Amino acid sequence: MARKSDKYQAELERLQILLVETQAWTIDKGRKTVIVFEGRDTAGKDGAIKRITEHMALRQTRVVALPKPTDRETSQWYFQRYVTHLPAAGETVLFNRSWYNRAGVERVMGFCEPGQYARFLEDAPHFERMLADGGLKIIKLWLDISRAEQAERLASRVADPLKRFKVSSLDAEAQDRWDDYTAARDRMLDQTDHPAAPWTVVATDRKKTARLNIMRYILKAIGGPGEAGPEPDPGVVFPAAKSDGRLAA
Amino acid sequence: MARKSDKYQAELERLQILLVETQAWTIDKGRKTVIVFEGRDTAGKDGAIKRITEHMALRQTRVVALPKPTDRETSQWYFQRYVTHLPAAGETVLFNRSWYNRAGVERVMGFCEPGQYARFLEDAPHFERMLADGGLKIIKLWLDISRAEQAERLASRVADPLKRFKVSSLDAEAQDRWDDYTAARDRMLDQTDHPAAPWTVVATDRKKTARLNIMRYILKAIGGPGEAGPEPDPGVVFPAAKSDGRLAA
Amino acid sequence: MARKSDKYQAELERLQILLVETQAWTIDKGRKTVIVFEGRDTAGKDGAIKRITEHMALRQTRVVALPKPTDRETSQWYFQRYVTHLPAAGETVLFNRSWYNRAGVERVMGFCEPGQYARFLEDAPHFERMLADGGLKIIKLWLDISRAEQAERLASRVADPLKRFKVSSLDAEAQDRWDDYTAARDRMLDQTDHPAAPWTVVATDRKKTARLNIMRYILKAIGGPGEAGPEPDPGVVFPAAKSDGRLAA
Amino acid sequence: MARKSDKYQAELERLQILLVETQAWTIDKGRKTVIVFEGRDTAGKDGAIKRITEHMALRQTRVVALPKPTDRETSQWYFQRYVTHLPAAGETVLFNRSWYNRAGVERVMGFCEPGQYARFLEDAPHFERMLADGGLKIIKLWLDISRAEQAERLASRVADPLKRFKVSSLDAEAQDRWDDYTAARDRMLDQTDHPAAPWTVVATDRKKTARLNIMRYILKAIGGPGEAGPEPDPGVVFPAAKSDGRLAA
Repeated sequence: MARKSDKYQAELERLQILLVETQAWTIDKGRKTVIVFEGRDTAGKDGAIKRITEHMALRQTRVVALPKPTDRETSQWYFQRYVTHLPAAGETVLFNRSWYNRAGVERVMGFCEPGQYARFLEDAPHFERMLADGGLKIIKLWLDISRAEQAERLASRVADPLKRFKVSSLDAEAQDRWDDYTAARDRMLDQTDHPAAPWTVVATDRKKTARLNIMRYILKAIGGPGEAGPEPDPGVVFPAAKSDGRLAA
Repeated sequence: MARKSDKYQAELERLQILLVETQAWTIDKGRKTVIVFEGRDTAGKDGAIKRITEHMALRQTRVVALPKPTDRETSQWYFQRYVTHLPAAGETVLFNRSWYNRAGVERVMGFCEPGQYARFLEDAPHFERMLADGGLKIIKLWLDISRAEQAERLASRVADPLKRFKVSSLDAEAQDRWDDYTAARDRMLDQTDHPAAPWTVVATDRKKTARLNIMRYILKAIGGPGEAGPEPDPGVVFPAAKSDGRLAA
Repeated sequence: MARKSDKYQAELERLQILLVETQAWTIDKGRKTVIVFEGRDTAGKDGAIKRITEHMALRQTRVVALPKPTDRETSQWYFQRYVTHLPAAGETVLFNRSWYNRAGVERVMGFCEPGQYARFLEDAPHFERMLADGGLKIIKLWLDISRAEQAERLASRVADPLKRFKVSSLDAEAQDRWDDYTAARDRMLDQTDHPAAPWTVVATDRKKTARLNIMRYILKAIGGPGEAGPEPDPGVVFPAAKSDGRLAA
Repeated sequence: MARKSDKYQAELERLQILLVETQAWTIDKGRKTVIVFEGRDTAGKDGAIKRITEHMALRQTRVVALPKPTDRETSQWYFQRYVTHLPAAGETVLFNRSWYNRAGVERVMGFCEPGQYARFLEDAPHFERMLADGGLKIIKLWLDISRAEQAERLASRVADPLKRFKVSSLDAEAQDRWDDYTAARDRMLDQTDHPAAPWTVVATDRKKTARLNIMRYILKAIGGPGEAGPEPDPGVVFPAAKSDGRLAA
């Protein structure tokens, strides 16, 4: 057990060093990167982002986790409050949930109208293509967790006094509306997967394995000095377009 | 002479009252409006905007005249710094020059690369269509001035101590590169005119006539209580798509 | 009548030219100026600001008229939302109402607690002295109107369709609580007048005279090329500290 | 060794739980807290902040580490860019270096003028007293490290590829100008220690001990449910006012 954890720590550190080198290159070349983290509750977004950013450059890295929109924001252009946070040259922005809220929680919980949902599915690829044409590297990750694993994590969260601020009134819905979330995920992956910003799936039931694989994939996707790093495990990380049957049901 | 000016004042006031009523309706209905003012130097953008906004609601009206982008902004998504200023429900935003800088001064003066220019011409209609689909009313005005009139206005500006802050180092270029600006205008009007956000031309050699006609047109375009107001003069205001031969050469 | 108006126009223009020259000097020297406009409803703040800024440099001039604070702002440090708008080098900021709201409308209408009011009267001079020590020129103007003149202006506002957005639900209180506002004004002028940021009173019952005198005073106060301009009329503009008996009762 | 680390982990977790409970109370009561972390390079500011915030509420916690001021910011009121980040009700803001830059690195490296330095030492207590009077809890921590320990940490940083972004061009100066920094620290602690916002010193040569003690002290200082927690070790945490001889020379 101790040995396994030591191996994890060693590999984590190796990948973090590659991320640091890659970011030095990103800054030097003036590249711009956006990494979108999507996935059901407890899928491991926070934990992955924490390890990725742990040693990254404070000033050139931003983690964006937007709160519920205000009434004023709700009445603005849907993408407006996200656009504010897009990176300048040399910057890396990690979105902990993103504009894809509309295709997930808003859809399932009825927080948007059907017309807004349909328009979003149509607009998102156009929006992202414009950004990509402007030189932005967009990495979209779907962290995929199974129903049983989610149930377990939700239960352990409630019992943990350190996770008080992670428990939300929507948690119960995650399991109750599991199938609705599944349908929303499938439609989102289907309709918003496009060459300028494809979706990549990561199976996250095994947390540590998932984190290491996310890092490996990001290093490959950004290019630069980390590109020569280790290959992600194709059983854990795979293109949404080729996910046939491998997504959690 | 005095009589003519009195008539102008009376008509100006009548239209301002209609604008005030229209804005009360805009606020009440939660509408969102963007009015883009484009045109060569001295074409009358500032003067028109001043009369339009004179009695409008301070808090629901914004005039946006962005300075030269910073290096950081230059490296961001081109539309990013404009998106920040898009209206929320009930708001009216007037852009005194806009994202179309790229198709005008940036093109002519070489402040952007050919690839950026080409991409802008392609992106602008997509960008605007997304905004329009989201419920934004977009009014795009090209204020069209003749070469002789511009020469005269530029000269009188230099002589007027009140206009000290309007004189710019680029003024000389306006006449020297007249034909380049003409070509840029024609290509812009041609490639970025689309149903969701068409271009409307206003002949502005006669300042006061132009101002009144801009107001009449805006009232019609927004709809609401001002829609029943006076028709703009079709010799002064006309769709870019039907401008054949009427644009200043 | 026409002649009188012509004289006003000529003097207005002369002063505006001096303001433009003064601002060019402000920009060149990197000075920073704040002009606070306070006074009862209809005292002439908007009209004065409009004439002062009419030809000033768009980018180095800001008129700040803050809306009602949000709940979040209300819970922050009282001066915080004003500090955001303080000028950088070369900038001139005109506050159309300011932090002195607390000593006026908030006090009279009960929008703040007595303790907050007392603390404000104590803090304001400290706050302003810090700003002044940091190189900021602070000009504080109290626009003083008589009860009868205010009554007339409020009535004419209601009747004027162009002034729809100036009419407020608080207008009635201005006359009803006249004496409370008088007491609040007197206490404010008494307790927040200090050498680093003294109060200057302008009698504004005669609008045009008031505007010209405000401009003359500002030119003197800023210094620079406009300092040699005409003297303000001591019957219209005078230090709060020497206002004995001259304030509207 | 393993045992010692286990004890640290257990105590860390216990204190983090108390911090979480304290923050829930802070949010519920609408309190506002600022914690200022100052100290020489490598004194342990980042590490302490990381453990403190690890489980805190994302939306009600802000870590502020401002970059070098822009030219525009440099010309503004010195405190202006910090004021922007002050907390609203329920919020906790941790400043990783703060306005005290002026009394430390700016003083020693000559980045400010003597007059600015003198004025800062005078203004800071006034500024903080105003904030405190407005209901803000201000906790100011000086993380105190010895010369030898700093030398060691600086050396290990350079050798560590994960710390690439922590290495700065100013690092060499930290040791070379040790005595100047000492003098600046002493004068700062002496002149800006006042009842509304006193300085507290933490000896940080032993990292883990320091972190636990910082947390204990913060819990006591904020009050609320964490107040009953363990006492900080008076040999590690002590008021600057009673530090006689205990500060690193």
